[in-house]
Amino acid sequence: MEKIIYRRPVQYYETDRMQIVHHSNYIRWMEEIRVAFMKEHGMPYHQLEADGILMPVLGVTCQYQMPLQFGDIFSAGCHITDYNGVRLTLSYEIYKEGCDRCCVTGTSQHCFTNADRKPIRLPRRNAALHDLFLSLLEQDIAEKL
Amino acid sequence: MEKIIYRRPVQYYETDRMQIVHHSNYIRWMEEIRVAFMKEHGMPYHQLEADGILMPVLGVTCQYQMPLQFGDIFSAGCHITDYNGVRLTLSYEIYKEGCDRCCVTGTSQHCFTNADRKPIRLPRRNAALHDLFLSLLEQDIAEKL
Amino acid sequence: MEKIIYRRPVQYYETDRMQIVHHSNYIRWMEEIRVAFMKEHGMPYHQLEADGILMPVLGVTCQYQMPLQFGDIFSAGCHITDYNGVRLTLSYEIYKEGCDRCCVTGTSQHCFTNADRKPIRLPRRNAALHDLFLSLLEQDIAEKL
Amino acid sequence: MEKIIYRRPVQYYETDRMQIVHHSNYIRWMEEIRVAFMKEHGMPYHQLEADGILMPVLGVTCQYQMPLQFGDIFSAGCHITDYNGVRLTLSYEIYKEGCDRCCVTGTSQHCFTNADRKPIRLPRRNAALHDLFLSLLEQDIAEKL
Repeated sequence: MEKIIYRRPVQYYETDRMQIVHHSNYIRWMEEIRVAFMKEHGMPYHQLEADGILMPVLGVTCQYQMPLQFGDIFSAGCHITDYNGVRLTLSYEIYKEGCDRCCVTGTSQHCFTNADRKPIRLPRRNAALHDLFLSLLEQDIAEKL
Repeated sequence: MEKIIYRRPVQYYETDRMQIVHHSNYIRWMEEIRVAFMKEHGMPYHQLEADGILMPVLGVTCQYQMPLQFGDIFSAGCHITDYNGVRLTLSYEIYKEGCDRCCVTGTSQHCFTNADRKPIRLPRRNAALHDLFLSLLEQDIAEKL
Repeated sequence: MEKIIYRRPVQYYETDRMQIVHHSNYIRWMEEIRVAFMKEHGMPYHQLEADGILMPVLGVTCQYQMPLQFGDIFSAGCHITDYNGVRLTLSYEIYKEGCDRCCVTGTSQHCFTNADRKPIRLPRRNAALHDLFLSLLEQDIAEKL
Repeated sequence: MEKIIYRRPVQYYETDRMQIVHHSNYIRWMEEIRVAFMKEHGMPYHQLEADGILMPVLGVTCQYQMPLQFGDIFSAGCHITDYNGVRLTLSYEIYKEGCDRCCVTGTSQHCFTNADRKPIRLPRRNAALHDLFLSLLEQDIAEKL
């Protein structure tokens, strides 16, 4: 079972007329999970932004296996699945609490820019963050061996 | 009947599990209507912002008489109901097309600031916009007499 | 100081181009706070809905005194300020953690309906919920004396 | 150049603190575009739902090449890139008006269910819609040859 790093109740306003969470909201949840993941590893995203490092989203994918509803609590895991100093890919697994199955999976791909949105190379700009991403990537690879 | 200055279909993602438009979205519609109202009067809001004039929201009210649903088209009117150079109040009426009744009414109150969010006096800062708000206010008063 | 019944971080996607929380999101927060308030008092809203009792929103008001930003944590209090068996009014106070001032206040007014959205009288339909609302109203009145 | 089937202004509330459209909103735009695409081809989605045919989203992908901002108008094309009677894949291209480059591309994959969310085979359930999807798929293949 996945290590859970984030959990919260589904909000009423996140549902749609099918009476399930609207599919666009899982993209927002991936952002919440990513922010919690960064914070858990000592690198709060709002501090990175304050330091002039942005991580714009280059792309997302999301697969919906089972819908969540109002009244459910979701929990989530997050992994670094690729990182090379200029690009970062995260994967997400979203669970419904009290139910073993993974409900939604997704990925997001990011680059790194300064406050003017010019691309930066992370190893030069923030070595600690670079080392963190690298070690988390290695950890993810090791777990899959 | 109200003069209509904005219309568009209800979006699927704007509905909630009651199968009606979530009440928070009407606050967003009021913003869409306000932006269309400013544009119709030759003062596009994105140009005001580019000129360093912001109109932050101080307060909103909204009354829900009849819900709208996916498949409906909404139309809306907008009026200036108060203006004194430092504060502006707008009122909104939202209709369901093909149905005479007003479905939702609301108001928003605004001040004026520069790009650093310091309050400004509009008569000094943008006389044309001041004159526009004043004449629209007079027009609203005249219509009610 | 207000009794806090809900707190969570501001989400990135809740901000707008003014770099503050978009004003419409506080209406959504009021819903989150209301849901937490009902749960805290042993009446989870998703169970009420499952029992065929809905609390549609008749109206909202919201006053914005100080903006919140990404990186902030908000906390909130909630009170019943009016209740008569067919109508319920709640008030909300939203704080920025680490800052004493109340940032946003609001109210929401509700009626009670069955699953077909026909109005119901709560005392007959769910006496326990009626008693709860009444005692919370009395408590709010007592606190203000 | 792509055939444009949908256009509208970017809304203020769709922007985030990077001052660009939040990446999750493009997933919502894909839904708007899909709804407009169905309507343009004589199959309004709200009528399909009224007839008991739902098209739940199985997955989405989205690539962000250039951000849109408040003040921009977006326009969009839509194609059927796969269809086999039980699965449908649509692709989307989003442009900024007055700028030739495609800003955002995406795909959505759908199945077909009845109102109880049980899978249905479209050829049996709605032959006209089946024929439409098939002919639009053939058209897309023909254009690429």
